[in-house]
Amino acid sequence: MAYIDPNAVRTVTSIGGGPIGGGWAAHFLARGYDVVAYLHDQNEEESYRSIVDTAWKSLTDLGVAEGTSLERLTLTFNLKNAVKDTDFIQESAPERLEIKQALYKELGDIVPAHVVIGSSTSGLTMSDIQAKCSTPKRCIIAHPFNPPYLLPLVELVGGKLSDPSAVTWAEDFYTLAGKSPLVMKKEIPGFVATRLQEALWREALHMVANGEATPADIDNALMNGPAPRMVAQGQCMAFHVACGEGGMATNLDQFGPALKLPWTRLEAPELTQELRDRMVDGCNDMAGQERFEDMAARRDRQIVAVLRALRDTN
Amino acid sequence: MAYIDPNAVRTVTSIGGGPIGGGWAAHFLARGYDVVAYLHDQNEEESYRSIVDTAWKSLTDLGVAEGTSLERLTLTFNLKNAVKDTDFIQESAPERLEIKQALYKELGDIVPAHVVIGSSTSGLTMSDIQAKCSTPKRCIIAHPFNPPYLLPLVELVGGKLSDPSAVTWAEDFYTLAGKSPLVMKKEIPGFVATRLQEALWREALHMVANGEATPADIDNALMNGPAPRMVAQGQCMAFHVACGEGGMATNLDQFGPALKLPWTRLEAPELTQELRDRMVDGCNDMAGQERFEDMAARRDRQIVAVLRALRDTN
Repeated sequence: MAYIDPNAVRTVTSIGGGPIGGGWAAHFLARGYDVVAYLHDQNEEESYRSIVDTAWKSLTDLGVAEGTSLERLTLTFNLKNAVKDTDFIQESAPERLEIKQALYKELGDIVPAHVVIGSSTSGLTMSDIQAKCSTPKRCIIAHPFNPPYLLPLVELVGGKLSDPSAVTWAEDFYTLAGKSPLVMKKEIPGFVATRLQEALWREALHMVANGEATPADIDNALMNGPAPRMVAQGQCMAFHVACGEGGMATNLDQFGPALKLPWTRLEAPELTQELRDRMVDGCNDMAGQERFEDMAARRDRQIVAVLRALRDTN
Repeated sequence: MAYIDPNAVRTVTSIGGGPIGGGWAAHFLARGYDVVAYLHDQNEEESYRSIVDTAWKSLTDLGVAEGTSLERLTLTFNLKNAVKDTDFIQESAPERLEIKQALYKELGDIVPAHVVIGSSTSGLTMSDIQAKCSTPKRCIIAHPFNPPYLLPLVELVGGKLSDPSAVTWAEDFYTLAGKSPLVMKKEIPGFVATRLQEALWREALHMVANGEATPADIDNALMNGPAPRMVAQGQCMAFHVACGEGGMATNLDQFGPALKLPWTRLEAPELTQELRDRMVDGCNDMAGQERFEDMAARRDRQIVAVLRALRDTN
């Protein structure tokens, strides 16, 4: 299937009247697209406009594309009108399989097969969602993080019937549209970011259940501990750089045995040579030619900037 | 035991020649204390000075106390000199129990019992560390997050022989010294922040081991997904506010069943009424009288500030 040139996308359809659908609409507007929003229910219009208005404030603070405005948002309650002449569909309908399946069945029949459809679902798989769609190849997962108009991540993966080139197309399109796409290797429940967040969340619930911490302790620990560093470095590079010249290899060789310690209820994987190599090679690839001291200095400059920004905003 | 008035602390001793000891020394210097650094080995001096110099750049960017300077740092290789006339000891010796036990045995005899000693250990318990100390009551865990001169968190907990008032004293002292103390309810392995980070880290290793993600995917997911929000809101308040008026109660009632889904290898705790209430009450306490829309707007302002700060620093 030859999809449209990602550079040629002009009109994006955002399906869904909730915070995710509204957040996506605001994001695409800010990036200069014409946006057609489909709402299922006329009663959703007021809250939807409020979601978009709120998002717009932050987006204008960050800087929006030239010539764009909220005027370029069209609301409709008619699905056929919503997808007429669209170049891309971002679907954020309710998280119920029967709703999504019925929607994709209809979209599959009324939307030309060269238009990619990305689903914002966080809990369903595309293999299930696309099961009743007559044109399933162009249907993929495009999962944002809330709020979608601010957090850059969008996780991309196809289902059993998806065309891999639809995922590649989406990677190009979202990059042009100012997002940070992550193309997943496999269709796994929770994708990557939500799995990581969920591991953390379950451990937090265990601690609260056992009287080891309160919700305020959990939030204090995260906000004042790993978070200001995590915006500058993910966990892999944080450990890589913290170990200096030895990097991730030192981390795993030295702290590998600590994986056996009961530092969370999550069992650690076996630290095989293969896993070790994947971690070390992955970090070395990310580091490229940058020196350890320069990576550490950049991390510190970014944390300082973040701490100052938070202080000035509070 | 009557400890010194936390406001009256003038001299802090930082034990340990590595990045944590050096980072702590820089932090206390920046806050206007006189700092005496004890290094075990003369060969550590050059790298130690470099650690402190590097930290100092960031600290001066953030703003240091009036009248402070690197001149107020004294280096010594003599433990007795290092603790003479000190008001507080931050211990960041190597993470080996026999080293820490021998050190606390000696400190216990030569340091007046009204001087609190906080250990930076991340992997040992104070109950073990203080076992051979003759004056164990004032010995507590005071665990920072790396880099300790930038990340505000310090986790406090006593061991079996510790005096609870030493922990209370440390909470006051670290607050005055510009840190965000977290007083733990129990002495659990990994404390709070490291347990959360470790849950996330183990799930990341599982994904890499299974070929579901690369280290670059993990870091992309964290940096562009939860991280920019996590500096503004911990995970509890992030879910609380994302659910609008219903807050955490809606989150748990609606997404509780999702805890049974295989969204990480970490088994979820049973979502009992008691756990539900602790989570809901904890979030309501944190929210206080602030309205949901105001909390969401504040979150967005902070994320915008963080994204701008990162953009301007890259």
